[in-house]
Amino acid sequence: MHLFYQPDAGAFPFLSEEESRHCVKTLRLTKGDSIDVTDGRGSRYKSVIETADPRRCTFRIQETTTEIPRPYRIHLAVAPTKNSDRIEWLVEKTVELGIDHLSFFVSKHSERRLLKIDRLEKIAVAAMKQSLQLFLPVIDPLLDFASVLTQPADQRFIAHLPEDGSAAPLWKSARPGGTTLVLIGPEGDFAKPELDSALSSGFSMATLGATRLRTETAALAACHTLHLINTI
Amino acid sequence: MHLFYQPDAGAFPFLSEEESRHCVKTLRLTKGDSIDVTDGRGSRYKSVIETADPRRCTFRIQETTTEIPRPYRIHLAVAPTKNSDRIEWLVEKTVELGIDHLSFFVSKHSERRLLKIDRLEKIAVAAMKQSLQLFLPVIDPLLDFASVLTQPADQRFIAHLPEDGSAAPLWKSARPGGTTLVLIGPEGDFAKPELDSALSSGFSMATLGATRLRTETAALAACHTLHLINTI
Repeated sequence: MHLFYQPDAGAFPFLSEEESRHCVKTLRLTKGDSIDVTDGRGSRYKSVIETADPRRCTFRIQETTTEIPRPYRIHLAVAPTKNSDRIEWLVEKTVELGIDHLSFFVSKHSERRLLKIDRLEKIAVAAMKQSLQLFLPVIDPLLDFASVLTQPADQRFIAHLPEDGSAAPLWKSARPGGTTLVLIGPEGDFAKPELDSALSSGFSMATLGATRLRTETAALAACHTLHLINTI
Repeated sequence: MHLFYQPDAGAFPFLSEEESRHCVKTLRLTKGDSIDVTDGRGSRYKSVIETADPRRCTFRIQETTTEIPRPYRIHLAVAPTKNSDRIEWLVEKTVELGIDHLSFFVSKHSERRLLKIDRLEKIAVAAMKQSLQLFLPVIDPLLDFASVLTQPADQRFIAHLPEDGSAAPLWKSARPGGTTLVLIGPEGDFAKPELDSALSSGFSMATLGATRLRTETAALAACHTLHLINTI
């Protein structure tokens, strides 16, 4: 079954121009074909195509079901990598694994201070559809480091391996349930003042693995680790 | 400290042309600078550059240390994706997370039946160096499905979500230690006969997450899951 995204499907039963093109041109779906449409907030609209218009494909909703959200929320805040492909991979992969909230922040050692959020949102939508999920994560615009520290969460971690190795793995320190926020630093790691202000703001240092991970790999490892902790 | 790769560093204390260029041209290292060299089998040669030749950089080994391998081995066998970027990403990321053995196989639904193994090996070397590891994984050439089933392992899993949902997560069924082999199928999933022959060859079905994962994401999830199981 093909899944399409229309945030207001209930009120406006037609697909955006992009989704219409994908549905009618790429997938060659036509009038009378069944499709699933999601609003990205947990609703699935089992529908039938009414007008297979490649610019405005309309559908008739036959059944609406709603999925209950996970009993835990994963929020990653990441210092974007210099290479934009790696940020896009990060978005695609964390959405595939399942993520609720993605923030990006400018760090002292960040080499990138601009982000194409609309491009990242498109990638998130594609990954949500591809992995057949009904929840689209919130993606924040680029924040400054201070505002990342004030993001609400039940547990807060900053991914960092101190030289004396004195940090517990996220794996052992995170508890199931609630909202877990993990900060992932830039290629050059966090600056000492950033680390200090995070610790004094109630964040705990956590390691994500035995090896030195790139930013985008660290984000994936954190996301997958939190899912496993919550499915024990 | 910069880490370089020379499989026969003990016998031949000089870098390959590619490593020499990276060392002398890119990193601008020169005579007298300290470098670490690994043979990809656990040895670290703390060395000093003798001749900063961009074609054949020689070094003098000052100290040799050997790292003990992990007490468990991760072997993933993957049906390569149609898109070669995704395979390369899979290699980079699993090496970063730490992997011992990567095999690729042709599956009934594989869209790719050719692989540039030398290119994948280059990516593995770069990822090993970047993540400061001393062990380079074995990467097999493309195998047929039958020979994948005969690969030696203490635990064997095939990543698959049956329609009746009757498969345990890898996370719950894998035990720590030994060699764990996980088969990851192609975009179109395994063909029924492949699944059947795997099951009759002693493989157990295992799921890797709650969502439908792309081949390369599944490989990463399997790799990270096995590390966590072994660090409990």
